[in-house]
Amino acid sequence: MFGIWGHEKAAELTYYGLHAQQHRGQEGTGIVVSDGETLKLHKGLGLVNDVFKHANFKELQGRAAIGHVRYSTLGDKGTEVDSVQPLLFRSQTTSIAFAHSGNIMNAHALRRELEDSGSILQTSTDTEVLAHLIKRSTQANTEDAIVEALQKIAGAYTFIILKEDKMYVTTDPHGIRPLSIGKIGEAYVVASETSAFDLVGATFEREVLPGELIVISEEGLKSIRFAMREQRKLCAMEYVYLSRPDSDLNHVNVHASRKKMGKELAKESPVEADVVTGVPDSSISAAIGYAEQSGLPYEMGIIKNRYIGRTFIQPSQELREQGVKMKLSPVRGIVEGKRVVMIDDSIVRGTTCKRIVRLLREAGAVEVHVRIASPPIENPCFYGIDMSTKKELIAANNSLDALCEMIGADSLAYLSVEGMEKAIVRDKTIHQGICSACMTGKYPVTVSGE
Amino acid sequence: MFGIWGHEKAAELTYYGLHAQQHRGQEGTGIVVSDGETLKLHKGLGLVNDVFKHANFKELQGRAAIGHVRYSTLGDKGTEVDSVQPLLFRSQTTSIAFAHSGNIMNAHALRRELEDSGSILQTSTDTEVLAHLIKRSTQANTEDAIVEALQKIAGAYTFIILKEDKMYVTTDPHGIRPLSIGKIGEAYVVASETSAFDLVGATFEREVLPGELIVISEEGLKSIRFAMREQRKLCAMEYVYLSRPDSDLNHVNVHASRKKMGKELAKESPVEADVVTGVPDSSISAAIGYAEQSGLPYEMGIIKNRYIGRTFIQPSQELREQGVKMKLSPVRGIVEGKRVVMIDDSIVRGTTCKRIVRLLREAGAVEVHVRIASPPIENPCFYGIDMSTKKELIAANNSLDALCEMIGADSLAYLSVEGMEKAIVRDKTIHQGICSACMTGKYPVTVSGE
Amino acid sequence: MFGIWGHEKAAELTYYGLHAQQHRGQEGTGIVVSDGETLKLHKGLGLVNDVFKHANFKELQGRAAIGHVRYSTLGDKGTEVDSVQPLLFRSQTTSIAFAHSGNIMNAHALRRELEDSGSILQTSTDTEVLAHLIKRSTQANTEDAIVEALQKIAGAYTFIILKEDKMYVTTDPHGIRPLSIGKIGEAYVVASETSAFDLVGATFEREVLPGELIVISEEGLKSIRFAMREQRKLCAMEYVYLSRPDSDLNHVNVHASRKKMGKELAKESPVEADVVTGVPDSSISAAIGYAEQSGLPYEMGIIKNRYIGRTFIQPSQELREQGVKMKLSPVRGIVEGKRVVMIDDSIVRGTTCKRIVRLLREAGAVEVHVRIASPPIENPCFYGIDMSTKKELIAANNSLDALCEMIGADSLAYLSVEGMEKAIVRDKTIHQGICSACMTGKYPVTVSGE
Amino acid sequence: MFGIWGHEKAAELTYYGLHAQQHRGQEGTGIVVSDGETLKLHKGLGLVNDVFKHANFKELQGRAAIGHVRYSTLGDKGTEVDSVQPLLFRSQTTSIAFAHSGNIMNAHALRRELEDSGSILQTSTDTEVLAHLIKRSTQANTEDAIVEALQKIAGAYTFIILKEDKMYVTTDPHGIRPLSIGKIGEAYVVASETSAFDLVGATFEREVLPGELIVISEEGLKSIRFAMREQRKLCAMEYVYLSRPDSDLNHVNVHASRKKMGKELAKESPVEADVVTGVPDSSISAAIGYAEQSGLPYEMGIIKNRYIGRTFIQPSQELREQGVKMKLSPVRGIVEGKRVVMIDDSIVRGTTCKRIVRLLREAGAVEVHVRIASPPIENPCFYGIDMSTKKELIAANNSLDALCEMIGADSLAYLSVEGMEKAIVRDKTIHQGICSACMTGKYPVTVSGE
Repeated sequence: MFGIWGHEKAAELTYYGLHAQQHRGQEGTGIVVSDGETLKLHKGLGLVNDVFKHANFKELQGRAAIGHVRYSTLGDKGTEVDSVQPLLFRSQTTSIAFAHSGNIMNAHALRRELEDSGSILQTSTDTEVLAHLIKRSTQANTEDAIVEALQKIAGAYTFIILKEDKMYVTTDPHGIRPLSIGKIGEAYVVASETSAFDLVGATFEREVLPGELIVISEEGLKSIRFAMREQRKLCAMEYVYLSRPDSDLNHVNVHASRKKMGKELAKESPVEADVVTGVPDSSISAAIGYAEQSGLPYEMGIIKNRYIGRTFIQPSQELREQGVKMKLSPVRGIVEGKRVVMIDDSIVRGTTCKRIVRLLREAGAVEVHVRIASPPIENPCFYGIDMSTKKELIAANNSLDALCEMIGADSLAYLSVEGMEKAIVRDKTIHQGICSACMTGKYPVTVSGE
Repeated sequence: MFGIWGHEKAAELTYYGLHAQQHRGQEGTGIVVSDGETLKLHKGLGLVNDVFKHANFKELQGRAAIGHVRYSTLGDKGTEVDSVQPLLFRSQTTSIAFAHSGNIMNAHALRRELEDSGSILQTSTDTEVLAHLIKRSTQANTEDAIVEALQKIAGAYTFIILKEDKMYVTTDPHGIRPLSIGKIGEAYVVASETSAFDLVGATFEREVLPGELIVISEEGLKSIRFAMREQRKLCAMEYVYLSRPDSDLNHVNVHASRKKMGKELAKESPVEADVVTGVPDSSISAAIGYAEQSGLPYEMGIIKNRYIGRTFIQPSQELREQGVKMKLSPVRGIVEGKRVVMIDDSIVRGTTCKRIVRLLREAGAVEVHVRIASPPIENPCFYGIDMSTKKELIAANNSLDALCEMIGADSLAYLSVEGMEKAIVRDKTIHQGICSACMTGKYPVTVSGE
Repeated sequence: MFGIWGHEKAAELTYYGLHAQQHRGQEGTGIVVSDGETLKLHKGLGLVNDVFKHANFKELQGRAAIGHVRYSTLGDKGTEVDSVQPLLFRSQTTSIAFAHSGNIMNAHALRRELEDSGSILQTSTDTEVLAHLIKRSTQANTEDAIVEALQKIAGAYTFIILKEDKMYVTTDPHGIRPLSIGKIGEAYVVASETSAFDLVGATFEREVLPGELIVISEEGLKSIRFAMREQRKLCAMEYVYLSRPDSDLNHVNVHASRKKMGKELAKESPVEADVVTGVPDSSISAAIGYAEQSGLPYEMGIIKNRYIGRTFIQPSQELREQGVKMKLSPVRGIVEGKRVVMIDDSIVRGTTCKRIVRLLREAGAVEVHVRIASPPIENPCFYGIDMSTKKELIAANNSLDALCEMIGADSLAYLSVEGMEKAIVRDKTIHQGICSACMTGKYPVTVSGE
Repeated sequence: MFGIWGHEKAAELTYYGLHAQQHRGQEGTGIVVSDGETLKLHKGLGLVNDVFKHANFKELQGRAAIGHVRYSTLGDKGTEVDSVQPLLFRSQTTSIAFAHSGNIMNAHALRRELEDSGSILQTSTDTEVLAHLIKRSTQANTEDAIVEALQKIAGAYTFIILKEDKMYVTTDPHGIRPLSIGKIGEAYVVASETSAFDLVGATFEREVLPGELIVISEEGLKSIRFAMREQRKLCAMEYVYLSRPDSDLNHVNVHASRKKMGKELAKESPVEADVVTGVPDSSISAAIGYAEQSGLPYEMGIIKNRYIGRTFIQPSQELREQGVKMKLSPVRGIVEGKRVVMIDDSIVRGTTCKRIVRLLREAGAVEVHVRIASPPIENPCFYGIDMSTKKELIAANNSLDALCEMIGADSLAYLSVEGMEKAIVRDKTIHQGICSACMTGKYPVTVSGE
């Protein structure tokens, strides 16, 4: 998500801000811009470049804008353009647009209530639920209506809401999903990842706090607390693989935390080997850390093909069996005859990991030791990451030895939860907690019956 | 609009059915298909070909489908993809999709009521109003809820509504907009124009009657009357220019009616001239009729350029002034030195007519007599044609002489209302009335305060 | 083909000029522009709009340009972009570009000679043969080299040749293919069809004469005669179906000539019937003429679907068999219960004609009388029309009665050669002859062994 | 370049082989396939994906194919589709296609000779010169004609030539440009980079030797020597930045050589600093080597934005000045307050280097020490790399101190030629020489007057 308030080029900067966060969702994207009087929307299915190549930014004039890149999760499947955010709701007197990241856990119950009292929900998105709750609120002003609505929903979320004359920015009471505020001159910017600030020339100001609703208007920022202060529970997977390495989360740089995870992993699970290599792109930092700690050389043992896009013609099954590779290829000149430590950031379903081990062996590696720079994922995520059932999580259903055999490695080790926390959490204050429910099963938010 | 019930290739046939009616709306298009259990939607901005070139018809499986091509009118402006129909509304238990043509005159009042009682309307379409009225109905079954909702709306409309297991087809109590039913084998098809039946290999069965709601399901057709029987008031402009010449409306072929209008026009307003020509494509039939009646030769004095599409590079102002033509060009070899009768179907704003008169003169016509094959349009349309204010209607604000001078013609004459009726109405029964409110000011439906 | 000399917007006007002649070739297109010092080329496969939608006209600056739309014929098959014209040949000192229409009959022999003496021909186009002949000429200046080369080739052709500082325009000694010269202000334009002049705001000056080479440069026009004066033998098929109705050929308007062919046909082969209809678009003029002469009403019995483009999804065989139509559809409301005279411009392979007769019957026509507004085509064309073997010409291999049965008509008649000549040739001078070899077998140019 | 002989899926595998080498040229691409009887060509401007997204591989059937990705150099500018390779020449009896990489130094003189004797060259490519030389050869068979032609040309080149029944593969007498042979089952494959073998599932067999012409046919491989054995002079820039890190050149892995260059650089030019970072993607290997040798941590201080494609909307000058970044962005969390060693692979014009130094300082780096992992480039390349004049080479025209100031670094150092050779050349045999003319001015091939 990205938002900007008070800049002549609001829509264009949102385009660049979404671009910087394209890795967070590739299914669809949209921008809503306000010129102070009306809201205008441009959205579509596909990448930011594809959706906006025909957009006329002259028609998207205005000093405030919000944008979104779509990533399907639990409560929010489907590839229809109606579900692409931001969602824009127009009434006769006013309009309101919503961008949302995360997952509302009691969405089903809330939907049922809303529908039973006559509301029509057009999409399967959680976002729409909040819009209806706000509309149904008896509060006189939007601010209070939003607070009332937020108090009814449970889950992990961040919202950016745009009206003609105000922008509302909020994070759930545990701050599970990240959202930060920056400035470009006098203009405010909001983004899921701080790397978007760097790309649009903004400076980081601060994170949106758990349970905080920030109202941005011509009067500047106003902070409202809508929930009791609780310990921050920032999603550990943001560090493990979701965020860009150049983003800072909770004042901790993502690349740096990954490298530390690699170092901790090297301390916990050393192995006698010749080279260390990482799966591009997200495991490179951890691999460098492992190499640095272990004293083994880091080498580029696996290469990612850069030119694969939407028009790439997938090789037929026959050609794939004959050895035609697509996205990743091993570097024979580096791994041949070597004992390789292969660092991966995590294992969800195990298919990629298994494939890479096989590629490395085919390229001549004599031993392949897999080291995972995060703890085993044994529990589903209800907070917005696409791992929703225990059944699909390979680590939940297999012992370490069985898993090692399944992926075909000579040895397999995961980073411990303690090791991960050492790498991510600088000092254990109320601000610094992380959510590692998918690894530990300790869920910060639960909803009965869901 | 197009709908089909009970055919294996429902979505594909809807594609061809929409294609046949592309001239009725070029802004956007969509198809909703039902496989008996769920509804699936594919829609987008642009022509039918553009929107469906990447569609995967394998994913649009089902035996029932409805489709729509979008044309902006009064209450329904905007080029956002959200407003493209069919609109699909999903609740936890069921789904419903709407395709609508026409204009609901009390939409504003109904919206206000709905919004005041907590509903959120996401689009500016009238369609959505009906959806909310149905949802809010206290009737137990959908059929009754639709009847209750239809009884609250006033205006000119046709709807095709699709649920998982039923299709509902309806026309307003005056039957202002056309809608017909046909069959392909055992399957039912519904279309705004009968020409769509010919293109998909269907046979015409009958028109949907004014104030009739037809329910199509596995049990076959069921007809419900939701309004008192009143005289049919089919939109005259459908004959004048909107429909394809190969369509039949009220059992009268459109080409034939246009040709008769041309003949009546020749009787009413003859002129001494050398050739008769018509503005392609919609005025050709009338021009042929005028020629036949007058004994003057019909000639192709104006040609339409066929290859202009969306990627056509518009000539700059400079080049246009140097004489670069785009869509229409006069045929010098035919009009040079000739006294030309130029037949046009109608005059709305007058700009096209003026331009063609100038082109004919530049190509050497010594006299240009303009004959309009319909009466002057002096009143706005509230029933779905894009002529919404009196201000823009050139005939409402100028005398015939002034108008003749404005368009630069040597003489100008319109067809009389009587002449038009002779050409369209076969026998004056309850079934055969037409709405000519834009010419006569006699509105069949009025809503106070709108 | 289109060319322009002496205009600031040479490339853009060529774009519009090609657009106007798109019907002459849809396989590929290109433009070469000269800024006085270098030649620049942009070309590609597809329609003018498609090829130039990404073209940067700012990079195609220059005051002279030539362009071409490609249509495959006898000696010139293949869909490789290399064969798309204009062909541009660069040497170290100068460049030269060629656009060509027609067919060189001794191309094979000339190619063999050229290849035997060490030349490499990169394309299968006749155009390249001329380029090599010019290069191999011992003449000192380009003008003389072109004359020498032209004297070696036999066939039907028009060429527009562009060098940095000169344009050369020529027609074969019989003037089989048309080429005209016009002016926009001080600029000269050249086009295969005069309709292109109208569309770019140019005025017609004169036709390029048989055996004439015109050199256009800063000094104006210069005319050179490279062959003995012979009677003009303009291709009759240009009148019959190839040219646009708004073009003039040899000072005869194409629509007017087609209408006269229809009239002559009505005189020669009248029939008792109810309506006359024509196959759109090229047979409409003749049908109107037939109707006018016979006193029968002309009706729009067959409609052409306008929105079929390159992205149109062709109906499957199954759907076609169920009656899904594509390009042409009959108008039931007009033909049902009627005796129909169906006018077609010509019959080559007979498949289209047969299909339309069937469509008319399915739509309820009780009789279908086919009248062809040109004589039977019984001989192949060696001059640039794609009918190259006798085998494929249905009229060459069947009696009139057999043919009538094959296409399923109640009666069938062709226009006589005399009737056609009456309609095309105003007065039988040396300028006014036509080539009707495909009908009469009298070939104006022959080459032994080909 | 890529070629394959003896595989059912020749064209498809060539597509994947070109894909793997897309980094070697992005301007255009093409494939020629032979089915034993005819050659077929598909080519166009743009990336492999763009050009082949509409290609019908069913029409590109055959068991032999060659392909090319185009990169403009010295003798070969221009973005016209005619110049995109492979070039296909058809005569009446046979066809021949050429793919070429490198630069023929005496091309101008050879062109002049060819043109003077009547040949027409259609493109500005060197490739065409070879085609004409072969055609003009008096030798009876193609093999001998190719040898005769090769003996006339001087320069750095590799060719893959395809006839209906044979493929010819060759490298210049010094082997300046790389070309290797591999196998997939019984099929032979040829590629500029060995990484293409890995991606199509082929195994490396051997490099094509300097001055060797290999003929591949149904009889298998046949090797012909057309030039005296000389020391291999493989282009050093292939190691420095041109090749993929997963390619092997002369049995030396490119990533490994780059890492060694980084290590040598650390030995030669150490610096007291906090972190080492590299410019993605080509300088990462060297940066890791520098870090490993120096004991400083390697960090991801600069990030490359992955989603920039052809439809990316470039930021306006105004937005760029406000800090909107495009391709590369610094990682504030890593470089802030740090002394940074920034490793770049080479400096040609200096603009990129200067920009990155500025970005790092803006992101808070307190010192920026630039270390270049190759020697200064002070001489133009005549062998196929796009650095053709001394004027544009910043190192040729400035002292080290001046250069350091120009790019805004705190210190600047280059790797020595000896250091580079240590990293690339395993043992100084006749096979192992490199061409470092752009650094040393020692040109292995010279042509008087060019």
